[in-house]
Amino acid sequence: MGLFFPVDPAPGAKIGGMIAMSCSGTNAYRYGTMKEWVISLTAVLADGTVITTRKRPRKSSAGYDLTHLIIGSEGTLALVTEAVLKVTPLPTNLHVGKATFPSLQAGVDTAIAILKSGHLLEAIELADKPSIASINHSKLAKEHFEETPTMFVKFAGSQETVSSQISFVKNTCKDNKGLEFEASSDKRRIDVIWGARKCIGNALVTMKKAPTDIFISTDAAVPISAMAELIKETNNIIESQPFDTSTWFCANVGHVGDGNVHTAIVCPVEDKEKAEQVLVEVQRLALRLEGTITGEHGVGLKLRDMLVEEVGEAGVGVMRALKKTLDPRGILNPDKVFRLEGEKGARTGRLEKL
Amino acid sequence: MGLFFPVDPAPGAKIGGMIAMSCSGTNAYRYGTMKEWVISLTAVLADGTVITTRKRPRKSSAGYDLTHLIIGSEGTLALVTEAVLKVTPLPTNLHVGKATFPSLQAGVDTAIAILKSGHLLEAIELADKPSIASINHSKLAKEHFEETPTMFVKFAGSQETVSSQISFVKNTCKDNKGLEFEASSDKRRIDVIWGARKCIGNALVTMKKAPTDIFISTDAAVPISAMAELIKETNNIIESQPFDTSTWFCANVGHVGDGNVHTAIVCPVEDKEKAEQVLVEVQRLALRLEGTITGEHGVGLKLRDMLVEEVGEAGVGVMRALKKTLDPRGILNPDKVFRLEGEKGARTGRLEKL
Repeated sequence: MGLFFPVDPAPGAKIGGMIAMSCSGTNAYRYGTMKEWVISLTAVLADGTVITTRKRPRKSSAGYDLTHLIIGSEGTLALVTEAVLKVTPLPTNLHVGKATFPSLQAGVDTAIAILKSGHLLEAIELADKPSIASINHSKLAKEHFEETPTMFVKFAGSQETVSSQISFVKNTCKDNKGLEFEASSDKRRIDVIWGARKCIGNALVTMKKAPTDIFISTDAAVPISAMAELIKETNNIIESQPFDTSTWFCANVGHVGDGNVHTAIVCPVEDKEKAEQVLVEVQRLALRLEGTITGEHGVGLKLRDMLVEEVGEAGVGVMRALKKTLDPRGILNPDKVFRLEGEKGARTGRLEKL
Repeated sequence: MGLFFPVDPAPGAKIGGMIAMSCSGTNAYRYGTMKEWVISLTAVLADGTVITTRKRPRKSSAGYDLTHLIIGSEGTLALVTEAVLKVTPLPTNLHVGKATFPSLQAGVDTAIAILKSGHLLEAIELADKPSIASINHSKLAKEHFEETPTMFVKFAGSQETVSSQISFVKNTCKDNKGLEFEASSDKRRIDVIWGARKCIGNALVTMKKAPTDIFISTDAAVPISAMAELIKETNNIIESQPFDTSTWFCANVGHVGDGNVHTAIVCPVEDKEKAEQVLVEVQRLALRLEGTITGEHGVGLKLRDMLVEEVGEAGVGVMRALKKTLDPRGILNPDKVFRLEGEKGARTGRLEKL
C-alpha cells in the first residue's frame, strides 16, 4: 500500500522486543525511534489489570503518557499484548550512496558537515576499517569492499532534492579528504551497498577466532557536537590499554546521523573482564560528553549498575518507586534495568534468591 | 542560526506550559508535538528531590522514560525547572497557500486526499465558514476574507518539491469542488494568509455579544480516517439540539493534518451547562471514533471526569497510583487531570477541602 514502518533495527528484531527496548536503528536520524512510532499499547499489569494506554489518535494530551512509560521499560512494568503503530509513505526515488575515507575522523567530519547543512537524508551510517574488514571476512555481503572507513547514506525525495543532496554529499566528502564516492538508484546496487551495512552486526561476530571468544559492544549516544570526540577518545581508550590487546578485534560502527556509536570487541573469553572494563570506560566517556550509556539497546542486566551514573540516584529512585507501585511483588522481569533492592541488592545477590 | 523550534501552539504559549500540556499546534502534522521535541527535563519532585531525566543525547533507551512521564502531566508530578529542547533547520523556500470550498466536507475530503497522497506539506489547517466570519469580525487579519470554508497550507523544500506539491494540492482542490486556490512565497502575502489562520483563536472570542458570554471549545482528535465523520457528526450534534441555539455562535477549526478539530461555542452565560453538554457529546463522539478528548490542550479540571471514558478505570487507576507514589501528600496541582480521591472525591468535593 505504499506505506512502511520506519523503525529499522538489526535483522531479527520483533515488534514486542522493539517496544520493550525503545529500539531504533539506521532510520532513527530521519524518522525517530519506537517512541515516535507507537500510538498506543494494551498491556497486562502485574496484578492482572489490563490497560489500554489510549485509542488511536495521532496525538493526545489525555493524562499521563503511559504509552511512553511502557516503551523502553524492558518488560518490567507490564506485559504488552497489543500495539497500535504508525506507518508512513515509503520514500520515493530511493538512492543509496557509499563514500570511503582515509581515516574515521574524515568520515565523522563529513557526517557532521552534512548534518549541519540542513540536508535531511534518509540515513547516515559510518563504519570503520575493521568493520569493513569483518564484512569481507564474513562473506555476508555480495562483493568485496575496500577496507577503509566507509560512510553509507540513503537519499529519497524529488529528483531535484536527491540530485542536490547527492551533489552536496559528494562535494562534502571531497572537502574532507574523501577517497571515492558512489550513489545509485539501481535496485541491485542498493542491495549490495545497503546489504553490506545491514550485515555488519552479524559480520563482527564472525571475527571470533575460537568458539569460546566473546563478542561485546557498547551502545553509546552523544550530542552530534560531541560525536567526533566520542570516536577519537574511544580509540584512545582502546589503544592505551596497559595489557595485551593484540588478540583482540575492535571495531566501531555508528548511526552517526543521531550520534549513536557501537564499539565492538571480540576477544578471548579469559579477557572478558578487561574488555568489559574498556567498554565501561567508553560508556563513562559518553556520559562526560552529555550522552547516554544506551541509545537503543536498553539497560537489561549488563548496564543496570551504570544507569545511576546517567540519571543519578534520584532518577533511579523514581524508576524504582514506579516499579514498586505497579509491580509490588517484583514478578515482571525482576532486577532488569535496576536492582529491585538497590545497592543492598547488589551486595546480597538478590537475583540468585528469586 | 537557521534553526527553529517547530512546536507552534497558539500565540502566548510558554515553554513551561507547553511541556505541562504536551501541546502542539499547526506544525504537529509535519513535526510532531512537545513529546518529540523535548530531550530532557530537570524537575523538582514533591519531596524536594531534583531529578534530571537524561543528559543531551538525541535518543536514549536508558531506563524508564521519565521525560515523557513529566511531559503532559500538567504540573501534577513535578515542577519543571529546566528543559533541553531539540531544534531543526528552518524550512526553506516557504510558500503559503489558501483554498476555499463550498462546504466544510469538501475541504475535509481535500485534506484527506492530500494526506493519503504521501506529499508531506508543512501544515494543513481547515477553518469553517463561521471561523472565517470571526476573522473578519475581529479585524485581527490584514484583509477581508471570503466567508466560506477555507484550507490554509504551508509548503517548503526544494523548488521542484514545492512546485509539485502546489500543483497536486491545486488539482486536488479542483477535484473536490474547490472554489479558489492561491499560493505565494511573498513575505507580505504569507503574513496576511498565515496571520489570518493564527488569529482565529482570538477572533472567535470577539464573537461574544455580551461581556458575560462564555467561550468554550473542544480539542478532539481522531484517526485521519475518522475525521470526516467527526466533523459531519459534530455539526449534526449542534444542529439537532432541542433547545434554542439561535443566540449561539459555533465554529470548527482544525489541525486537519493530524485529525485534531476544535469546536468552539460562544453563548450567553445562562446556556453554559447546555453548551458544555454539547461539547461532551462531541468528545464522546471522538472516543467512539477511536480518538481522544484532548489532542493538545490537556485535561485540567474541565475534562478530568471524562478521562475515565478514554483510558478506562484501569488507566486512570494507574495514573492515580503514579501520582500517589511521587506526590503522596497531593501538593502538586492537586485534583487536576483526575480527582486524587477518585469518584469519592467527586462526591465530597475534595477541592474545597484543600
